[in-house]
Amino acid sequence: MISIDPKSIATKDLHQFLLGIVAPRPIAFVSTVDENGTPNLAPYSFFNAFSSNPPIVVFSSNRRVADNTTKDTLYNIEKTGEAVINAVSYPIVRQMAVASVQYPQGVSEFKKSGLTPIASEIVRPPRVKESPAHMECKLKEIITLGEHGGAGHLIICEVVKIHLNESVVDSNNRINPHKMDLMGRMGRAYYVRASGDAIHTIYQPVLPLSVGYDALPEHVKHSPVLSGNELGILAGMEKWPEESELDALLSDADKQAIHKATEPNRLQKIHLLARKALSSNEVKKAAAILSMFE
Amino acid sequence: MISIDPKSIATKDLHQFLLGIVAPRPIAFVSTVDENGTPNLAPYSFFNAFSSNPPIVVFSSNRRVADNTTKDTLYNIEKTGEAVINAVSYPIVRQMAVASVQYPQGVSEFKKSGLTPIASEIVRPPRVKESPAHMECKLKEIITLGEHGGAGHLIICEVVKIHLNESVVDSNNRINPHKMDLMGRMGRAYYVRASGDAIHTIYQPVLPLSVGYDALPEHVKHSPVLSGNELGILAGMEKWPEESELDALLSDADKQAIHKATEPNRLQKIHLLARKALSSNEVKKAAAILSMFE
Repeated sequence: MISIDPKSIATKDLHQFLLGIVAPRPIAFVSTVDENGTPNLAPYSFFNAFSSNPPIVVFSSNRRVADNTTKDTLYNIEKTGEAVINAVSYPIVRQMAVASVQYPQGVSEFKKSGLTPIASEIVRPPRVKESPAHMECKLKEIITLGEHGGAGHLIICEVVKIHLNESVVDSNNRINPHKMDLMGRMGRAYYVRASGDAIHTIYQPVLPLSVGYDALPEHVKHSPVLSGNELGILAGMEKWPEESELDALLSDADKQAIHKATEPNRLQKIHLLARKALSSNEVKKAAAILSMFE
Repeated sequence: MISIDPKSIATKDLHQFLLGIVAPRPIAFVSTVDENGTPNLAPYSFFNAFSSNPPIVVFSSNRRVADNTTKDTLYNIEKTGEAVINAVSYPIVRQMAVASVQYPQGVSEFKKSGLTPIASEIVRPPRVKESPAHMECKLKEIITLGEHGGAGHLIICEVVKIHLNESVVDSNNRINPHKMDLMGRMGRAYYVRASGDAIHTIYQPVLPLSVGYDALPEHVKHSPVLSGNELGILAGMEKWPEESELDALLSDADKQAIHKATEPNRLQKIHLLARKALSSNEVKKAAAILSMFE
């Protein structure tokens, strides 16, 4: 391992290590207005939800590493106590990037990015029409994390209204990640597009309890074949099959294949059969195959 | 748009809307110990970095929506003031899922997930050997965001040591997202794998200033062909080409193609030529092609 003492490296390098490790980050595309009502729009990826009751989101507008200046968003939200956080989907990410340019105060990032401001219901800052989801927010508190370049602020906001484009929800009113097509921020110039083949579904109940890795047979724990993820799927089962269940879990073809798995390398052969069952989501069958090894 | 008043819907539904909108979220795989040194390991996706100077990360261990109980991680960090935040890469995500099961206090999630504890350098909680990056953390402050089920806490931590697996950095010591292969959390049972084709590179300097959408020719602003992302790429240019530069930016083949783009639909034909240039990253050439329309 490479060990890094944060106090011994330049802030810009530490910043990049944090951005590369704490990823992918959701993007808050934050709309604010100054005391004269002039709108500002800027993306921030030091952002997340932190509570659902009350609904709290937090983002940071950091002091610039280069010159220790603060940003218009921070000034505006301090003055007015309001913001709209818009989600960033793939179709608007290049226009979002234009809004990240350091235009002087008073220049509208809506005009520069070509995105369309539409009125909010509760707060003064406008929403971004092209964004698939908008959260109208009221400022609760700002916590300052430091005084030098790179220092963040926790801008703690309560969500007072949510707007969702009909096109991103399924008929059961649930958000579909493929339809949302969100972009996440990685380190350097990298983003991730969170849709399509990049989406994985992992259904792991937190209750009832899973058997756990420690309850797996010894030859499974130390499998020369199965990956950590495959062992995780087995460890995540609610119950390891009993001796009496094995017959029902295995088809005639399975039994024949197990019978044919002979020495040399019988262990490997049986573990490969289990892997095949796991790859088609037949977790109980995989466990039954592995139980036939002894 | 669908408009949602957070106060008018059940907490569990509001929770899912927040999880679907604020995504993809980085995962903090948090290792703590209780006052007797018994380790605990649990994943949290209400998590992000918020400052690089000082290096501050924040995560929330929420009160459970179902029964308003709090989690061992919160108890442990309140007692001991220390944690290790481990990154979650694709190869360990199923073992991470097992560690999310609500085992009773005292049961080791290291044993249940089959992940390997290794000693930290500064803090008592162990690191996860199989994780590609570990951040040893000292607690700065806990801010309570509510008293009922679904309420979060801001667990504000300073990173006092970073460990990175050599295998995830390039020869210039920069983190490579494909090698890190991180998992991000989406809503419901969805995760995103942030590597491979899902990674997009967007190089948009914040200085010098970009021309902006408002400076694009009128026919480009209202293009019947170009997408918002394509307009964003053009708006993100430092300079729109001068009349005098066009000749040098266009090859003979380009000039011939523009010459052949005749009515009807001359505008569409020329915009399609520009799109082709954009698709091969020839942004200046695309602008020059569009300049030939008038």
